[in-house]
Amino acid sequence: MKVDLIFSQSQADEMQLREKNVIVIDVLRSSTTVIAALSNGAREVIPVGSIESAVKISGSLFGDVTLRGGERNGRIIQGFNLGNSPLEYTEATVRGKSIIFCTTNGSVAMVKSRYARTMVVGAFVNMSTIIEFIRGLDSDVLLLCAGRPPAVGGFSLEDVVCAGMIIQRLKEKPSSVELTDSSLAAQSLYKAFGRSIPKLLKNSDHGKYLLEIGFGDDIKVSAEIDSIPVVPVLSGTVIKLRKDAVGVVGRDAAGSVA
Amino acid sequence: MKVDLIFSQSQADEMQLREKNVIVIDVLRSSTTVIAALSNGAREVIPVGSIESAVKISGSLFGDVTLRGGERNGRIIQGFNLGNSPLEYTEATVRGKSIIFCTTNGSVAMVKSRYARTMVVGAFVNMSTIIEFIRGLDSDVLLLCAGRPPAVGGFSLEDVVCAGMIIQRLKEKPSSVELTDSSLAAQSLYKAFGRSIPKLLKNSDHGKYLLEIGFGDDIKVSAEIDSIPVVPVLSGTVIKLRKDAVGVVGRDAAGSVA
Repeated sequence: MKVDLIFSQSQADEMQLREKNVIVIDVLRSSTTVIAALSNGAREVIPVGSIESAVKISGSLFGDVTLRGGERNGRIIQGFNLGNSPLEYTEATVRGKSIIFCTTNGSVAMVKSRYARTMVVGAFVNMSTIIEFIRGLDSDVLLLCAGRPPAVGGFSLEDVVCAGMIIQRLKEKPSSVELTDSSLAAQSLYKAFGRSIPKLLKNSDHGKYLLEIGFGDDIKVSAEIDSIPVVPVLSGTVIKLRKDAVGVVGRDAAGSVA
Repeated sequence: MKVDLIFSQSQADEMQLREKNVIVIDVLRSSTTVIAALSNGAREVIPVGSIESAVKISGSLFGDVTLRGGERNGRIIQGFNLGNSPLEYTEATVRGKSIIFCTTNGSVAMVKSRYARTMVVGAFVNMSTIIEFIRGLDSDVLLLCAGRPPAVGGFSLEDVVCAGMIIQRLKEKPSSVELTDSSLAAQSLYKAFGRSIPKLLKNSDHGKYLLEIGFGDDIKVSAEIDSIPVVPVLSGTVIKLRKDAVGVVGRDAAGSVA
């Protein structure tokens, strides 16, 4: 199994992700939020790449079962129902709803994976289930870190360390795992910074920014390893929990979907 | 002093580099080649972003004092005089010449730095002189790794470890050095992979490719720390040795140029 990694979604294009098994990682906060929303009973998450797309799509959907969620500069988008805090996506708010989801990097990474063979959403909160899922694939995977906008360098330490934790765990129970420059670097960064995930998140560039604008609790929630053991998976243009998604996880082995 | 870092030139745009102090790092091989060429007496290196630009510019220059150098997929470009091996740029070949230089990532990074406050070329071969130069600036710097094309993930471990070595050394003799997520990661990767630079280069993705196509000697040369103690600096649109460049290094302190 070869494990490759891209540090920032801004580095990726959708043709490059075609037919790959992609794990999208945006610890702070898109991945964590999607995982929380689906775990709390949202019917589906519909990732979009721009506010314009979000508005266009929500116009054609029924208002009472649709919510718009997402952020710009970490804050809720004007006219949206929800921001990008996993804590907003409670069962009372999201059960049975379709959530149109628009964030700066995370939802863009998810949209870019539309031609992927498989796209699942990973974070610290669903670490072990994601690793089990990858082991079950028994095929090459590409870890796609959402990262930050190119204007601020593209790089998020917390996303790469999360990817590195996946790599480290995969290597501990090997078949043979082959690494590239980037996945090797991620593994090394996990070893260096993975001892305390809460501390890592709090001290990261984006973590510091979120603290500044009042989202300290999101950081705590996002650091809780295995707290939400579900696997969100892209099925057509929507993301569902793996158990609700049909014929997606390994397209040629749809029958084996749990 | 704040030290920031970009993992891949494909992540950078020229407006973002505006007025910054940029160190372009492309260990295998553009930085090493530019350093070797100027150290061996080339009059100047003119970085260009495309083969078309190289052809256009060389048409307006005198043939007997101009050479075209560069690569695509690691190999010499058809119709060019030189490839991208530092070993080709001998004194006999380059003394007194202007070299139009076109490579996949390195020369593009140099061109993108055209509006930078300062742009210097760094590699393992001029490590200590670059560090002295940065200490002399006593100002924020941006380490711009050339990296690899986005289609292969953008990331070069050897460039980031070289940047990490600069960061590590800067931190050892501090004023206070402030790091970002990405420069902190580079420092950590230097600690993990910097013990043997020859081994690092040989085992990196691009190193393996260069070995495959017959450039193993370039890897040895590029790993020799402090073997070519000069500082190439961008002066207008050309790169010269620092001692030959006028009014560039710290534009408002031209008088202090060594």
